[in-house]
Amino acid sequence: MHYLVTGGAGFIGSNMTDRLLSLGAEVTVYDNFVTGHREYLEQALKNPGFTLVEGDIEDEEKLRSAMKGVDFVFHFAANADVRMGLEHPSKDLQQNTYNTFRVLEAMRANDVKRIGFSSTGSVYGEAEVIPTPEDAPFPVQTSLYGASKLAGEGLIAAYCEGYDFQGYIFRFVSILGERYPHGHVIDFCRKLKENPDELYILGDGHQKKSYLYVGDCLNAILTVIEKAKDKINIFNLGTDEYCEVNDSVGWITKRLGVTPALSYAGGNKGWIGDNPFIYLDTKKIRSLGWKPELTIEQAVVRTVDYIMENEWLLNQGS
Amino acid sequence: MHYLVTGGAGFIGSNMTDRLLSLGAEVTVYDNFVTGHREYLEQALKNPGFTLVEGDIEDEEKLRSAMKGVDFVFHFAANADVRMGLEHPSKDLQQNTYNTFRVLEAMRANDVKRIGFSSTGSVYGEAEVIPTPEDAPFPVQTSLYGASKLAGEGLIAAYCEGYDFQGYIFRFVSILGERYPHGHVIDFCRKLKENPDELYILGDGHQKKSYLYVGDCLNAILTVIEKAKDKINIFNLGTDEYCEVNDSVGWITKRLGVTPALSYAGGNKGWIGDNPFIYLDTKKIRSLGWKPELTIEQAVVRTVDYIMENEWLLNQGS
Repeated sequence: MHYLVTGGAGFIGSNMTDRLLSLGAEVTVYDNFVTGHREYLEQALKNPGFTLVEGDIEDEEKLRSAMKGVDFVFHFAANADVRMGLEHPSKDLQQNTYNTFRVLEAMRANDVKRIGFSSTGSVYGEAEVIPTPEDAPFPVQTSLYGASKLAGEGLIAAYCEGYDFQGYIFRFVSILGERYPHGHVIDFCRKLKENPDELYILGDGHQKKSYLYVGDCLNAILTVIEKAKDKINIFNLGTDEYCEVNDSVGWITKRLGVTPALSYAGGNKGWIGDNPFIYLDTKKIRSLGWKPELTIEQAVVRTVDYIMENEWLLNQGS
Repeated sequence: MHYLVTGGAGFIGSNMTDRLLSLGAEVTVYDNFVTGHREYLEQALKNPGFTLVEGDIEDEEKLRSAMKGVDFVFHFAANADVRMGLEHPSKDLQQNTYNTFRVLEAMRANDVKRIGFSSTGSVYGEAEVIPTPEDAPFPVQTSLYGASKLAGEGLIAAYCEGYDFQGYIFRFVSILGERYPHGHVIDFCRKLKENPDELYILGDGHQKKSYLYVGDCLNAILTVIEKAKDKINIFNLGTDEYCEVNDSVGWITKRLGVTPALSYAGGNKGWIGDNPFIYLDTKKIRSLGWKPELTIEQAVVRTVDYIMENEWLLNQGS
């Protein structure tokens, strides 16, 4: 099998690349290194089954040419900066919706028909049903990020119906683990490195969050692709656990051996469009035999350890 | 009140324009006349409260400038050619999704915060629940058209949440009536004018469809905008009636006084991505006191009469 991974120098993409190579597959990574890191591909670059193509998805010709001979596309490239959506409202539309279309067109030009897509639990907006199943009541979008990912899902589904593609859509909770370059864990590590005595927290600290460890996320994705046989396969990926931001602060500070005074911005949201609680019903993925191996606490600790072993990440901006 | 109507030279847009002018409002129509017709604005052009701006939505500067002093935007401009989606897959994305974003940005630049949007029952895909309510189980998209309109809905909802807009989203069944320039009624009228003795019908003729008369559609939209007060208001627009394509063929041929031999392409779909049955639950709009005044048969007959009184329409291509 020959996989192409867009965003393959990113957090989930590079972890997937290493996993696929370890399983003996051929992997082409397509990435523009705007948010991806060359360091994440160190191992991959030593593997003879690995090809790196540096390019923008907007470069439709280069993308089409990189897609030659590929059997399966993981489309992970995205603007994952959920918080800043309102400051540059075209970014999600361009990078998450329009670029998904470009990937689908490059696939169609090369008769590549299978795609895995990283969507998000944000597509459920302020979910009425919690934990939220895949067939929850038709949600109303609350963020440009969620809306742009849902639009990507819709394009993929329409290509499955109209051009006989097979699609695997994964609605993630937040994923943690090695190489996670943004989000609250690295934010807190950065702040605590600058000043271990104080920590300022957005919201009131009681925001509930459900996180999944990246290794468990990869297991889930590969389980679905092996076992789910529909034209279009939509799966929530998450754990049955959740935590409060305050729990996570406790695990992080303990691991770092610091005891900062905590202060809070207040309110129940970290930012406009932030959902106070994304907690997904994972019965569907569990029915395929998958279950997570790490707890949220273990995932947070592994993330902290990776960041501390790779301090260059702290200087990259979140 | 000063309304701007994108697609105001089109079927629903021009009917809405005439209605708003008759209620004493100011109306600016923004249309590029690619599918709109100047003939539809004959009455409007005589009204001192009317302004016509000829332009593409892609011309962001012109659109922004046309939006000055406007209180409310009806965004009706769209690629409504559902059938041909697979032959030019970027068209729905460009014209329905991306242009909705451009309209929202032009509004934001002018501090215009209220928008009415023509979405579609196609967003429900192959609905699991029929009649389909607004909060049906999260659907899977089956057409590029439906996917592009759902993406437009998502953008509007995100602007409501993020920029304090107020949105009115209408999920239409097919609308019929004066000025309807495409769809099965005009197709059949055209074919029967060429040859009144034979009629070839896509599918098996048993495809069920629910249609709403354009006058009832306008009443529904104006009722919602008057009475619904949420930040984001999503309403199905349809009737409790449905018919088969064969019923409609009977009404059309009777009105035209012809008795063609009927032949059928077969199958239960007219085209790939065509939904065999879009039938919407309209309890929500009915709870506001609205109900349709015309039956489907009456709507079909009015459409036929309009076409026969405006034969130039038959030469426009569908």
